[in-house]
Amino acid sequence: MPSLIRIYALVLLTLTSTGAFASNQTNAPLNAEASDPNALQWMTGFPPPPDKLITQPQSNYFSFPKLRWTVCHIRELLPTTQVSRGIGAPNALPYATDTGIDKITFTPMGSDTPMTWQESLAANYTDGLLILHNGRIVYEHYNGCLNETGKHAAMSMTKSLTGLLAEILVAEGELDGQAKVASIIPELANSAFGSATVRQVMDMTTALDYSENYADPNADIWQYSAAASPLPKPADYSGPDGYFEYLQTVEQNGEHGVAFGYRTINSDALGWIISRVSGQNVAHLLSERLWQPTGTEQDAYMTVDSKGTPFAGGGLSAGLRDLGRVGLVMLDKGHFNGRQLFSEAVADTIQAGGDKEAFAKAGYTTLPGGSYRSMWWNFHNSHGAYAARGVHGQTIYIDPTANMVLVRFASYPTASNSQIDPTSLPAYQAVAEYLMNKD
Amino acid sequence: MPSLIRIYALVLLTLTSTGAFASNQTNAPLNAEASDPNALQWMTGFPPPPDKLITQPQSNYFSFPKLRWTVCHIRELLPTTQVSRGIGAPNALPYATDTGIDKITFTPMGSDTPMTWQESLAANYTDGLLILHNGRIVYEHYNGCLNETGKHAAMSMTKSLTGLLAEILVAEGELDGQAKVASIIPELANSAFGSATVRQVMDMTTALDYSENYADPNADIWQYSAAASPLPKPADYSGPDGYFEYLQTVEQNGEHGVAFGYRTINSDALGWIISRVSGQNVAHLLSERLWQPTGTEQDAYMTVDSKGTPFAGGGLSAGLRDLGRVGLVMLDKGHFNGRQLFSEAVADTIQAGGDKEAFAKAGYTTLPGGSYRSMWWNFHNSHGAYAARGVHGQTIYIDPTANMVLVRFASYPTASNSQIDPTSLPAYQAVAEYLMNKD
Repeated sequence: MPSLIRIYALVLLTLTSTGAFASNQTNAPLNAEASDPNALQWMTGFPPPPDKLITQPQSNYFSFPKLRWTVCHIRELLPTTQVSRGIGAPNALPYATDTGIDKITFTPMGSDTPMTWQESLAANYTDGLLILHNGRIVYEHYNGCLNETGKHAAMSMTKSLTGLLAEILVAEGELDGQAKVASIIPELANSAFGSATVRQVMDMTTALDYSENYADPNADIWQYSAAASPLPKPADYSGPDGYFEYLQTVEQNGEHGVAFGYRTINSDALGWIISRVSGQNVAHLLSERLWQPTGTEQDAYMTVDSKGTPFAGGGLSAGLRDLGRVGLVMLDKGHFNGRQLFSEAVADTIQAGGDKEAFAKAGYTTLPGGSYRSMWWNFHNSHGAYAARGVHGQTIYIDPTANMVLVRFASYPTASNSQIDPTSLPAYQAVAEYLMNKD
Repeated sequence: MPSLIRIYALVLLTLTSTGAFASNQTNAPLNAEASDPNALQWMTGFPPPPDKLITQPQSNYFSFPKLRWTVCHIRELLPTTQVSRGIGAPNALPYATDTGIDKITFTPMGSDTPMTWQESLAANYTDGLLILHNGRIVYEHYNGCLNETGKHAAMSMTKSLTGLLAEILVAEGELDGQAKVASIIPELANSAFGSATVRQVMDMTTALDYSENYADPNADIWQYSAAASPLPKPADYSGPDGYFEYLQTVEQNGEHGVAFGYRTINSDALGWIISRVSGQNVAHLLSERLWQPTGTEQDAYMTVDSKGTPFAGGGLSAGLRDLGRVGLVMLDKGHFNGRQLFSEAVADTIQAGGDKEAFAKAGYTTLPGGSYRSMWWNFHNSHGAYAARGVHGQTIYIDPTANMVLVRFASYPTASNSQIDPTSLPAYQAVAEYLMNKD
């Protein structure tokens, strides 16, 4: 495999993987302060000195600690498409800052030593943290590469927005969850997706013959990455070009609907489905359905493949407060600033969660009793919390009981959220309980 | 030369060239209506059919008529960096629409047949046209790939904004126009730029050994393009990487300060100079000095090289009304919405124009008696008009006598403005006189 494609594969996987790259890391990575991209002076100077350059693609820009710079600069390395906020005035979020939050203590999973909320920020390599309670910002924090006018890679939180768009189209009767994918995308009739239902794709219970075995040079993940790369294909390349061509090559392995299997290609297939049904690509849908009506402050953007297809499985970069607006409209079940942006049934369906039995087969140790629904993760905890999640610590965490939305951007050294959940999920619960006690 | 680099060279040149590509065109290109990118359905469908694809880089996306789509979609094909508008509310431009403008007649250069303003729009393959008079929008028109929420390639108008930033730094005493470039950028000491003054770079009266002979595979333009491409370099590439490394290789040919020679590399050198002096790259300077304080509606963006350097000579894409704001602040000599954004001397210097004798040597047939100052074109006509100009018909035309700013985005089949000036410059003068008669 040409090295350029292999390197793009690493990027693509890092945007979406659930942990495959943990093994890339040393046992003791630099801590948050030492790995701060400003401290390391990445890409500073005119030109930056060679040892401060992060370039496309030779410098492996998604390796730690470089990734702590890269997560705020995706568009400078790859072609992207705009998620327009429109051109009107933004809709301001009110503030009710609570300085007590920093002092909240919680006990990390698997630990006996309490940690404060403030300590968790560095422990989690946090780049941005926003907490909304009763519709007001009670906590806001920026670090590393991010500030309030910046944008950060959302990683696999992109999937949840793709899933939300699909759920909106289902509620509007434009998309039938029980329809076979082949009836909507005839080009997928001979692939694994063709015989799956839209709902199975949305919930990732498709049975796909899809390997992420990096040791195998013929593993499907390499073909997927080669197809998805927006970089020019090598002259001798003869494989599929773009997400849509790749999806047609995926074969079935087993029975759909039985087990949850986290595969990014489901999100790309869902992106295709909602584009075909709506006549708009995912970036346009995000703009029309979410970015414009919620009065966002900043355009967001999505990476694209070589044919301009937005990466529905992991390509979004956005501002912290703008993802807070997305969280609010979920928490408020489609209501936003006096308007009903989508049916309450949309949020109800996602909030209810998916098939716990199917989910349990995937063996997520930090998410016991959880489920996955419409590309959102459900904790099925005492507060009924659910979340969009992306590798390296990205989350939109929605706690309906505490009327709380929490958004975190991070650049944790390892990709898997199983590493960062122990100092995160108990912290979120502690903040939720603290805020409820104030009500 | 590897074909990928050659193709990028075509893109780069098309963004900046003064006419080299005229010979690429057939004698009778499709007219504006027939070449409308919406009519041709470029990049429509999920996925677009093969004959509707415009991709990076094999499909030669800057060839006519594809370029009529591409000029609004640069970021989907290349890495870019943001020119932030900030996150506040935009500053609305007031309207005083005048429907009489469409009926204004003028006589194109070299013709006996009058043409109406409205007819000129299609004749010039206009994508966007904005006229401001006495600070209010009197005319606004979108066509082809552009609408009011879209962005269009500014081509070499980028140079004028780079020149404006330099002039601002001169007025603030941060940059000495008489300083030798080598005193600011020691890395350029052994290049042609080292012995030139900053002013000579700003006015493009440097004497550079720089060939744009496309028939010569060793012509400098190919090396420049290879260095500037943000695409991964071929494995066997050993030339300069990025704008700054390339500039160090340019040799002197003749005496600086004698003749105007339109060379994009002067703008890249100036971009380096103002970045070194200010500590900010050109995109950040544009944001801080123009986009944020003029209350723009949209972020703009710039293409970057492989090291993240914004293309100061041609990389900007922006919204139509936002370039109108830039024109207004020039017309009003730094005043905008009750603030003084830069010294009146900045606009005075640019408006006064440059060395007519040096300019005459370049032989621009449609610009007799003109000059070039701080990367702005001066017509030295009866109204004292001057302009930012870019290939394929881009302009910010400022008429101080008529208190008029006119912004045009276009996708004319041939690059050279000498083809489009005959149906443009007399039209601008006619509109200016019409508006003055109303005062």
